Amino acid sequence: MRAIVIHEARDLRIEERDVTPPGPGKVQIRLATGGICGSDLHYYNHGGFGPVRLKQPMILGHEVSGFVEEVGDGVTGLAPGDLVAVSPSRPCGVCRYCLEGRANHCEAMRFYGSAMPFPHIQGAFREVLVADAAQCVKADGLTPGEAAMAEPLSVCLHATRRAGELLGKRVLITGAGPIGTLSILAARAAGAAEIVTTDLSDPALAYAAKAGADRTINIGSEPDALAEYQAGKGTFDVLYECSGAAPALAGGLAALRPRGICIQLGLGGDMTIPMQMLTAKEIDLRGSFRFHEEFAVAVALMQRGTIDTAPLISHSMPLDNAVEAFEIASDRSRSMKAQIVFSEAA
Amino acid sequence: MRAIVIHEARDLRIEERDVTPPGPGKVQIRLATGGICGSDLHYYNHGGFGPVRLKQPMILGHEVSGFVEEVGDGVTGLAPGDLVAVSPSRPCGVCRYCLEGRANHCEAMRFYGSAMPFPHIQGAFREVLVADAAQCVKADGLTPGEAAMAEPLSVCLHATRRAGELLGKRVLITGAGPIGTLSILAARAAGAAEIVTTDLSDPALAYAAKAGADRTINIGSEPDALAEYQAGKGTFDVLYECSGAAPALAGGLAALRPRGICIQLGLGGDMTIPMQMLTAKEIDLRGSFRFHEEFAVAVALMQRGTIDTAPLISHSMPLDNAVEAFEIASDRSRSMKAQIVFSEAA
Amino acid sequence: MRAIVIHEARDLRIEERDVTPPGPGKVQIRLATGGICGSDLHYYNHGGFGPVRLKQPMILGHEVSGFVEEVGDGVTGLAPGDLVAVSPSRPCGVCRYCLEGRANHCEAMRFYGSAMPFPHIQGAFREVLVADAAQCVKADGLTPGEAAMAEPLSVCLHATRRAGELLGKRVLITGAGPIGTLSILAARAAGAAEIVTTDLSDPALAYAAKAGADRTINIGSEPDALAEYQAGKGTFDVLYECSGAAPALAGGLAALRPRGICIQLGLGGDMTIPMQMLTAKEIDLRGSFRFHEEFAVAVALMQRGTIDTAPLISHSMPLDNAVEAFEIASDRSRSMKAQIVFSEAA
Amino acid sequence: MRAIVIHEARDLRIEERDVTPPGPGKVQIRLATGGICGSDLHYYNHGGFGPVRLKQPMILGHEVSGFVEEVGDGVTGLAPGDLVAVSPSRPCGVCRYCLEGRANHCEAMRFYGSAMPFPHIQGAFREVLVADAAQCVKADGLTPGEAAMAEPLSVCLHATRRAGELLGKRVLITGAGPIGTLSILAARAAGAAEIVTTDLSDPALAYAAKAGADRTINIGSEPDALAEYQAGKGTFDVLYECSGAAPALAGGLAALRPRGICIQLGLGGDMTIPMQMLTAKEIDLRGSFRFHEEFAVAVALMQRGTIDTAPLISHSMPLDNAVEAFEIASDRSRSMKAQIVFSEAA
Repeated sequence: MRAIVIHEARDLRIEERDVTPPGPGKVQIRLATGGICGSDLHYYNHGGFGPVRLKQPMILGHEVSGFVEEVGDGVTGLAPGDLVAVSPSRPCGVCRYCLEGRANHCEAMRFYGSAMPFPHIQGAFREVLVADAAQCVKADGLTPGEAAMAEPLSVCLHATRRAGELLGKRVLITGAGPIGTLSILAARAAGAAEIVTTDLSDPALAYAAKAGADRTINIGSEPDALAEYQAGKGTFDVLYECSGAAPALAGGLAALRPRGICIQLGLGGDMTIPMQMLTAKEIDLRGSFRFHEEFAVAVALMQRGTIDTAPLISHSMPLDNAVEAFEIASDRSRSMKAQIVFSEAA
Repeated sequence: MRAIVIHEARDLRIEERDVTPPGPGKVQIRLATGGICGSDLHYYNHGGFGPVRLKQPMILGHEVSGFVEEVGDGVTGLAPGDLVAVSPSRPCGVCRYCLEGRANHCEAMRFYGSAMPFPHIQGAFREVLVADAAQCVKADGLTPGEAAMAEPLSVCLHATRRAGELLGKRVLITGAGPIGTLSILAARAAGAAEIVTTDLSDPALAYAAKAGADRTINIGSEPDALAEYQAGKGTFDVLYECSGAAPALAGGLAALRPRGICIQLGLGGDMTIPMQMLTAKEIDLRGSFRFHEEFAVAVALMQRGTIDTAPLISHSMPLDNAVEAFEIASDRSRSMKAQIVFSEAA
Repeated sequence: MRAIVIHEARDLRIEERDVTPPGPGKVQIRLATGGICGSDLHYYNHGGFGPVRLKQPMILGHEVSGFVEEVGDGVTGLAPGDLVAVSPSRPCGVCRYCLEGRANHCEAMRFYGSAMPFPHIQGAFREVLVADAAQCVKADGLTPGEAAMAEPLSVCLHATRRAGELLGKRVLITGAGPIGTLSILAARAAGAAEIVTTDLSDPALAYAAKAGADRTINIGSEPDALAEYQAGKGTFDVLYECSGAAPALAGGLAALRPRGICIQLGLGGDMTIPMQMLTAKEIDLRGSFRFHEEFAVAVALMQRGTIDTAPLISHSMPLDNAVEAFEIASDRSRSMKAQIVFSEAA
Repeated sequence: MRAIVIHEARDLRIEERDVTPPGPGKVQIRLATGGICGSDLHYYNHGGFGPVRLKQPMILGHEVSGFVEEVGDGVTGLAPGDLVAVSPSRPCGVCRYCLEGRANHCEAMRFYGSAMPFPHIQGAFREVLVADAAQCVKADGLTPGEAAMAEPLSVCLHATRRAGELLGKRVLITGAGPIGTLSILAARAAGAAEIVTTDLSDPALAYAAKAGADRTINIGSEPDALAEYQAGKGTFDVLYECSGAAPALAGGLAALRPRGICIQLGLGGDMTIPMQMLTAKEIDLRGSFRFHEEFAVAVALMQRGTIDTAPLISHSMPLDNAVEAFEIASDRSRSMKAQIVFSEAA
């Protein structure tokens, strides 16, 4: 079977790998769809990010869905032919954080396609994937592309839970990439009354509007458009900072009302923040990192139609065109979520 | 102008009252619609409830909408012809609870149509109502009937906030009267993934299904239907207890999982509860009482289409037929929310 | 070695049991002290409580301390001679509740001295106890009697955490048995500003005063003494209900202010509660059940002198007098916490 | 009467001012003690801080106590001779934030000795102060110096409440000025189990030890001493950042465990923070600003002996030596809290 392997920056290859049969509690999956995430792009374009660096070839990918081909001993509830969304989250289940109910902080996490530990944790962009049954959530009623959106949507659902209850709240989202636009869907599903989204890219903001933003602002061409929200002590109850850009964060904090909550999703390394303002308005700046139990929730909310991710899938390209897919995904003016199609049907 | 006045149990009269012009900060409203609430029915059928008893004639009603006719000095943002939902909540703004942000616990609350203080607080079922501008929320885009649903919907939004975040949660609602069915809408708006509703009345449950319950259970004809949810340590994350009936509460608590939350909305006087179970599962039983800032949220969520209350309005009857409207509203097999039409247009 | 075995109500025997050497990860402990808990007394006096019934002989006891005699393979941080407090909580570590960080709701909990599953979970009142190293917390600086107080103190620390932050709050505690008086210590450690305690027994209230209650009320002889706190909408921020008696709960709820929190610790089977009041004041009634990570906290807070449990140990009696100890512990007019001394030193 | 007036940086004068008699609801107070706060020092040394700048002469001071001389009409509960702590917080009571229970965010706050609005809000360093009765908290049993500590202690109590419950938690405090050392007292009162404090000044750390820190670290002379707490994913549950220095914040965040809480008290203008770390550990960075209802709590906790601020009062100097007092207060190597004595007795 073939897999998408990154060797170093700009050196992405399609390579052959062996298939191993599924052991007890495992499931063999014929991969259907794999979405390209920002971290995949960091490996592809830069060989990593911050201290996280490629030191050996690594299979990329952690936003995947596929069809069950075979189940190992002891697996119940899954059968050949089932479409499943596969969670890339594999916590150890025995460390202190797992036992505190915070599996996303597992001390021995094996998250697909991560170069942080060495040897690296290989990813899921491969034609045949053997996963734990516990990673698989049945996704009947969804397309494989939608099922592969469960992973980034989970990130945004987790962030939304970090924000507390949103019913009737006013929300600002800075950054309209896949995480920003999926956050629009998540915030709306949680009852947000008004959602304003900013970005520097008009095509990205067009997707934000499609996702249901009440107002989109190109902060490049309308640099003063947030001023009305920043007046007085500010306006919004919640800010999702999805850009990782310090000016976006600073402008967003200024638009939050006292005791407003900022959920930091964007990964921007060190950032300079207006601490005096944060202190005087008693803002809560909360980091949000990955997800765990939200994965099944993501699938369920798509299945019942509460959340529709389909409009955000901008490209579906065959495995043979993987490099082109990574190029397109790297170009914000051309794509929102680009996905690779590994196989067409069960 | 005419008003609907309760004198004692079963003695409801339409009487003439004087109109006083609106003073500074006040608004004169031609009432459009008034919804009949359970407490109105308690006065009508029993002369009160628990320790709350009629001691003098009282105008009923607190679920109202109307059209602005005239505004007093200093009123901005409202003009003749505007459709407004009128909040019955008039806290004093100076007591300790008002200053804690808990206006619904105001020590000097003047809530429309309440017999608790003496002299009673007169209600809003009158052809011409003079209210504080702060009570009025513009309701353009809604029908007068929908605008009059803002009040009971606010009760359910407040209860939903008391439950914390609901995104992807499993919810049980016991009791499918107006509060129970509006709670379905509120819980769904907050992102509940699964909503099961119980009642003893099939017509009520039909409205629950219309409101979006995933499953309805007639606990009279299917007494064992909750057993599957009560198995092990229970299933639901949140229970809205809207019946005020001890068996419904007990059965609901048994169906909650450890650390589940029960929001008590039903008013049932003393109730016997399985305290050992509540303790062992560490359930949170939280009372929810009225609302305050949720009133504007209710209007906003209806305006943006997140919540549609129209299907729950079962009857719209003219003021002349007020007594008949109270009779119908008293009969759960015939009605969900019965409203009285005071005037047809602006 | 000898153990304290309950056969049926009023049939308590001291019996011989074999000693098994400690396996890997285990610790062999020469028991020093065992405190008698209310549940031990239920087995002794009534053969159980509610649905929990003795069906076979069971070693009692779950409040214990002792000296390490021998450690199994792989045990670090413990050595022969160490005084340890031993937690009776043995969750499975793999069920959904364990992985949610709610080990006290473990689906396969093996809590010492519990007749709920069958075969029963044998208790810790035995001269030699083999426990998991993870159950043992080093207790240097404490007396063995104090170390054995870690368990009931943990119950009260857990309850205190359930109440949220207490700094400067006003607290009412109904019921001045061991749990009520230890709750005084726990609430004070968390910063409670004023603590009032009620009971029907003057000797119990004398212990409450010793534990630091600002005021003690014998609700039998001063039935109206809570009235001043119940005036208006009530006074206290937090109620610890430790009596399991419905009148105590009702009177306590009446003395809570709006949005007050009642932590239910007393086990009273079905209880009738004034639900209308709970709803109108939006009280949170929260069950609290056992503890888990609080066990190590209990030891630490005693070690640093924040909490002093010694004044609450009313009796220390040798193993030979176990039956007499159970008799004394059953008599509230004579004892607060009665402990059995299994051995005197390391 | 005389008052301490700042004209511009380094220009502090003792000037005569008129005394006006207390109107209805007001209290005339003979000032006893006034503590010098960091913001007073900013005006004295730099003419302001950040955008807050002196534009006219302003009486300094907001940490004060005194003896009631005369009460205006309608004042109850206060009598001539009473020692009172006087809160500098005068919210409007009618803006949206006041009515949300967040008076510290009042849109029209008149906080003593603030140059932010113009005309400036005059301060309380005057021999005779006329205050609202609502600002005065009776402080019998305290010394005037302790009573004047109620204000900075309130800041720390408010911060502690922002941190949620602390019982048994591990706490790091960066910065051992008056706010840092009072935070030690506040955290301990709330049940913190272990408190580590860092600073660059040994004299400051000596006060921290006196306040009860379990360990003090001079991060200048022991730059690696936090490494043991930063190992793995970190150690502390809560960080009070009281230095306003970016390196202290960064080092502190590294020492927090996942889901740890950082309360930002230090005012440091823009600060660069390791956002990737904050995100990956899902840290909550919460601003804390002033206080409101905590003022009465501060007095109460000192009265009952839970908190003892006396050891932190390093200097008490007469009004005549005000300039010298400001000099000493400006020198961290010589002082902790310097206070000015306006009068000796009632």
